Amino acid sequence: MAACRKIKGGVCSAKGFRAAGVAAEVKYRGRNDVALIVADEPCAAAALFTTNKVAAAPVVYDRSVIRGGRIQAILANSGCANACTGEGGLADARLSALVTAGELGIDPHHVLVASTGVIGRRLPMDRLLAGMKLAKGALGRTAAHGLEATKAIMTTDTRPKQACVTTVVGGRKVTVGGMSKGSGMIEPNMATMLGFVTTDAAVSPRMLKRALQLAVGKSFNRLVVDGDESTNDSVFLLASGKAGNREVDKPGKDFDAFLEALEAVCVSLAKQMATDGEGATKFVTVTVKGAKSERDAERAARAVAKSPLAKTSWFGKDPNWGRVLAAVGYSGAEVSDMQAEVFYDREWAFRRGRIADERQLAKLAKVMKKDAFTVTVDLHLGKFESSIYTCDFSLDYVHINADYTT
Amino acid sequence: MAACRKIKGGVCSAKGFRAAGVAAEVKYRGRNDVALIVADEPCAAAALFTTNKVAAAPVVYDRSVIRGGRIQAILANSGCANACTGEGGLADARLSALVTAGELGIDPHHVLVASTGVIGRRLPMDRLLAGMKLAKGALGRTAAHGLEATKAIMTTDTRPKQACVTTVVGGRKVTVGGMSKGSGMIEPNMATMLGFVTTDAAVSPRMLKRALQLAVGKSFNRLVVDGDESTNDSVFLLASGKAGNREVDKPGKDFDAFLEALEAVCVSLAKQMATDGEGATKFVTVTVKGAKSERDAERAARAVAKSPLAKTSWFGKDPNWGRVLAAVGYSGAEVSDMQAEVFYDREWAFRRGRIADERQLAKLAKVMKKDAFTVTVDLHLGKFESSIYTCDFSLDYVHINADYTT
Repeated sequence: MAACRKIKGGVCSAKGFRAAGVAAEVKYRGRNDVALIVADEPCAAAALFTTNKVAAAPVVYDRSVIRGGRIQAILANSGCANACTGEGGLADARLSALVTAGELGIDPHHVLVASTGVIGRRLPMDRLLAGMKLAKGALGRTAAHGLEATKAIMTTDTRPKQACVTTVVGGRKVTVGGMSKGSGMIEPNMATMLGFVTTDAAVSPRMLKRALQLAVGKSFNRLVVDGDESTNDSVFLLASGKAGNREVDKPGKDFDAFLEALEAVCVSLAKQMATDGEGATKFVTVTVKGAKSERDAERAARAVAKSPLAKTSWFGKDPNWGRVLAAVGYSGAEVSDMQAEVFYDREWAFRRGRIADERQLAKLAKVMKKDAFTVTVDLHLGKFESSIYTCDFSLDYVHINADYTT
Repeated sequence: MAACRKIKGGVCSAKGFRAAGVAAEVKYRGRNDVALIVADEPCAAAALFTTNKVAAAPVVYDRSVIRGGRIQAILANSGCANACTGEGGLADARLSALVTAGELGIDPHHVLVASTGVIGRRLPMDRLLAGMKLAKGALGRTAAHGLEATKAIMTTDTRPKQACVTTVVGGRKVTVGGMSKGSGMIEPNMATMLGFVTTDAAVSPRMLKRALQLAVGKSFNRLVVDGDESTNDSVFLLASGKAGNREVDKPGKDFDAFLEALEAVCVSLAKQMATDGEGATKFVTVTVKGAKSERDAERAARAVAKSPLAKTSWFGKDPNWGRVLAAVGYSGAEVSDMQAEVFYDREWAFRRGRIADERQLAKLAKVMKKDAFTVTVDLHLGKFESSIYTCDFSLDYVHINADYTT
């Protein structure tokens, strides 16, 4: 089986895509805030959206557009989320897609839009559309173009997030590349999770949707920063088919190869997002194993990753297994403190009623100083396992989220 | 109907109870850490405990003891939670109840024990029992005795929490008084919620349990500090019957009068706990009304109260209704941002798609400066309402919970 290989790159790495990012003063001066991604031809496409019942206008608009299964362009902006903006906001989303299609000379039903930024403000349509035209003129196929587009959707992100992987599907080399943003889970001013992935593999819209669901389930859906969920979260996947493989239209070896590459890209983006979590000083993987059921493993890991007490203990470099175990205890998962074990990386902190002695604490202290570690809870009750990517809860998280004024 | 009247007092205010708090060096020197509450005779009693599956030894022990429905003494300590301590910890809990009963000359099945403090450490039995004997010698019926007992269960609490109410049940004046501790919801080092309430009303164990469930449902269960739940949370209610009323043994007017008083005490204690939440600078009541169902109102209010983004916005004095509405959106409750309204006290911030203008923002700024306010979300979808007591999320919360080292 062909190796899935990580390379440098992003949304322009797969054949058939151009991108641009420009400064249009949607909210701030002198920073990229409008991104445009354009495929040479209509692509098979899939999308997943926030489950938040307060869904932003672009999400509502895109949900209807994506039903067609073909997309050729994505217009995205930061600075304004176009959420809680009523019928007017929906009209803005629709109009920006229409004008973009007109400008590019493509089908208006082939344009997705995405916004991130302040909730409750209308889009500054004149500046957004001027930005879109500017971006059209700046479109290109280089890594630099992908990077400019990535920068245009950043908010509290301190680093642009890109990932790229090549693999072989049906005997042809294919590329999957993507970009994402997001560092708190929701944020009227800033965060939201947006992810755009492109590939030159030929995959049917149906299998593309399936691959995206599976990949998101192992990546973005395993990501917890603060447990809040945005009104704007969106992930798009476009497949140009330019790699020349026979279209993947059913499960099997080719689908698995494609899925592996897609997962690698999405997991990399998700990990970059956790690492860049608002105020984060540590990237933490929470793994619960030995659970009685898949659901137990999942909810236990999620409870630990969301627990403010566990998160602040990581910030404080404290191997506080008690907070970890207590979070598992209220997660709803089956757990017995007579049987459970808690590890930080490979060092145990609590073992079936036994707690770390001085020597063990010294080893744990070393783990806690690392920028990244894994907290593992082994419940010893079954064979199910689940992992969540998260970060610590720092003073800066509070600063970032308290200091902004509407 | 007789007025329910708040007075100064606590666990010694009702007739038939003595209390003491002493310093026994369970963990620290020079602070009260062992509390003893003793009734003159066995009392009708009820108790409610944490639902955390990792339940501390005293909780496991008390669950069996309370089945008898009669209690005469409570031994409580801070400094050590006696949680995750295995069979040995359970034996310690049992032994401390037995020795207390022997010392007091009462039935060993009439003693409840409660612990709060570090998880995973065994109780220092010699010091605990020496403290218990010291406390026995210090027992008394004055408000000062109740206060000393209250101080003995404090951990990160910055203030002792007591409440007392008098009312009339069956023509007799009855008193309900209580004490509690807790400022983060769980804490291996510190927090946990403990609440001890005494009354001189005569109430059957069955109706006492019912009253306690109802009162806790409107008070301690409506309290969110960080959303974490302790392994040790316990609430006890003892009724001495010394008020001389005919025993309340069924629903009706007398039960309602007693319940009203009990609720008032529990709500006061819960509010004191939210106000004293770890690092809290603001007491916030989150009210969701106009919900389609009771469950919707409840989960929407709870989601807002738990949202780190909403909580940090309160700390930042920011009327950030977007974060509030987004939390409602992911709570699972039905919500439409076209119909919802968000208020801070009586000032609106978001009204069915309309957002506050400069003049309204000035009014909101005044509310946000207050030490206590209510965030109200009116969903306009039904007639159900629910409130949660909580606090903001401050820099000090992170300090308090990060700076402790196991």
